[in-house]
Amino acid sequence: MDAFSRITDLINSLPATVPFVGPEALERQTGTEIRARIGANESAFGPAPSVVEATRQAAGDVWKYSDSEHFSFRHKLAEHLACKPENIMVGEGVDGLLGMTARLTITQGTPVVMPLGGYPTFAYHVDGFGGRIVTVPYEGDRESIDGLLDSVRKNDATVVYFANPDNPMGSWWNEDDVVRFAQALPETCLLILDEAYCECGPAEAFPSIDRLINMPNVLRFRTFSKAYGLAGARVGYAIGTEGTIAAFNKIRNHFGMTRLSMVAAEAALADQAYLQTVIARIHESRAQIGRIAEANGFKALPSATNFVAVDCGRDGDYARAIVNRLGARGVFIRMPGVAPLNRCIRISAAPNREMEILAETLPQVVSEIG
Amino acid sequence: MDAFSRITDLINSLPATVPFVGPEALERQTGTEIRARIGANESAFGPAPSVVEATRQAAGDVWKYSDSEHFSFRHKLAEHLACKPENIMVGEGVDGLLGMTARLTITQGTPVVMPLGGYPTFAYHVDGFGGRIVTVPYEGDRESIDGLLDSVRKNDATVVYFANPDNPMGSWWNEDDVVRFAQALPETCLLILDEAYCECGPAEAFPSIDRLINMPNVLRFRTFSKAYGLAGARVGYAIGTEGTIAAFNKIRNHFGMTRLSMVAAEAALADQAYLQTVIARIHESRAQIGRIAEANGFKALPSATNFVAVDCGRDGDYARAIVNRLGARGVFIRMPGVAPLNRCIRISAAPNREMEILAETLPQVVSEIG
Repeated sequence: MDAFSRITDLINSLPATVPFVGPEALERQTGTEIRARIGANESAFGPAPSVVEATRQAAGDVWKYSDSEHFSFRHKLAEHLACKPENIMVGEGVDGLLGMTARLTITQGTPVVMPLGGYPTFAYHVDGFGGRIVTVPYEGDRESIDGLLDSVRKNDATVVYFANPDNPMGSWWNEDDVVRFAQALPETCLLILDEAYCECGPAEAFPSIDRLINMPNVLRFRTFSKAYGLAGARVGYAIGTEGTIAAFNKIRNHFGMTRLSMVAAEAALADQAYLQTVIARIHESRAQIGRIAEANGFKALPSATNFVAVDCGRDGDYARAIVNRLGARGVFIRMPGVAPLNRCIRISAAPNREMEILAETLPQVVSEIG
Repeated sequence: MDAFSRITDLINSLPATVPFVGPEALERQTGTEIRARIGANESAFGPAPSVVEATRQAAGDVWKYSDSEHFSFRHKLAEHLACKPENIMVGEGVDGLLGMTARLTITQGTPVVMPLGGYPTFAYHVDGFGGRIVTVPYEGDRESIDGLLDSVRKNDATVVYFANPDNPMGSWWNEDDVVRFAQALPETCLLILDEAYCECGPAEAFPSIDRLINMPNVLRFRTFSKAYGLAGARVGYAIGTEGTIAAFNKIRNHFGMTRLSMVAAEAALADQAYLQTVIARIHESRAQIGRIAEANGFKALPSATNFVAVDCGRDGDYARAIVNRLGARGVFIRMPGVAPLNRCIRISAAPNREMEILAETLPQVVSEIG
């Protein structure tokens, strides 16, 4: 291979895999145009009209670098969350922030605990810095807090990943359990609390910011990619103590955020009324997905996210066949990667148009597979 | 400090410095609104109207992640450059790509050679991965190819950084010298050839893509931030052999580019006529800066970029006083960081409005300092 000869041993040891194949790449692979884009938990409800308008207004300003300190945005976000701007780090989506967090904490062999079947992009970043991943099975389709705690202690783990609500299952824990988990961890273990879907779940699942804000070993991650409908803008943020947050400033790409994304996120934050309409539509869509599942003999699992895991009642091969055949008909969905979660398929909440295509296509596929 | 206790030794050893303080941060520090934003080599000529229109049209699509493979953009860029799409890696500006390149090649103690006074953000990324920087002085305000070569050999360097045309001096080498440099390097040393300003210089300064495309130890970096007027969109790209380019796929944030930035960059690439008008205006503005310099008893250095280094004829303290006092009057410029380059100030090409403010303000500042 015609590659530079002194790429590091660590990088050379990494596989050339991608955590997720995007819908455009799938279209090119299959030659089929996607009619229902309900696989990546994007929000097909779209961004707020106020966000689109603010973006259009600012389009000519793109010749200027964005404010490297995200001053205005962090101040507004801090007010919204009831914390200080110094408790917030803005980054290129939760994915970008997870990569930086891995770099802050992981070197060759660092033990990292995560749920078996948890977020592949997190595992990708851990691998990328040479970390040693220890996985803990789900219990009843929910991440196992006690199992994660045990594994952290046993392995003297430096980092533990926990998504609440969970992706890919949509399940959740209540806030007291989350706080109990955080407090039971040794202070030498960083809790990565991924709350990407927090706008979609019941309020009681999310500890208020002040309950965890004084813990240097807790970082909470949130995003504008899901309920706010800005996946393509890549705006995520981490919440933590001033000291832990300050560490990002030593390694981040200071001028990495785009100007229009910051305009869009600030406008989205200001339009909480629109967010509420989207959340109502997500709830409605989850119920629709439940009815479609039932009509096909499947069972939708309870969800606190903008997607629903649907138990297809058989094994991973069966679920994979459904995903593939839906894809061949232009319906893009995804599924968990490992057993026993992979008896499920994962469908994103979306407007009626997409739900109708799903309702029409799923029975064809199910009958085809038999 | 209330920081997580197991941040890596390397990160803990890093200072909390920022390569550049942005104009918005300066405004907050000084309490002075910037009237002429001519310090960060942004293009105040703005993006093409066609780019603004394409961005506005696409604003509602921001709920979708961008294509993780940048398929369409890479194909169009490859056609434009006369190479293969597999020779191109797209990233969050040259800064983002330099960070990734550092990660691909540098671990604790890796020797890295760069010009003394060269791009601070590159040094920041090298430090961030524990590299050992060896600097080589400029010769006659130009990077020293022979000096860099000597240092690479003496230190068995893994990476050498070379900007053509140069930032912060605006100087350049011709293509045969660049090719000679690349070919004289040991194949165990990666040449980072930063061509961020290549649209602004004479054609003979830039080797055609095919002259270096088969060298696994050469990566060329270009951007839409400068002449294309898209600094706030964060779109850069690296050009190299398929093998070296493929290494980025093992570590990059696959969904890191924003949707609107890709739309903007693709539209900008398609509008070469607008680019030519900007380049003409940059040439005109460089001449204006030369006249303003001369009127103040200073000497503009020749430039192949969208900025001009102006020799103020004294030491770094004097130049710093000019930069600071211009800043206090709302004129944002920058200057090189080390002697002897820091006898200069660095002024970005800009429309007449900004040039008039500069022409009016600079004499006030010069007379004030005395």
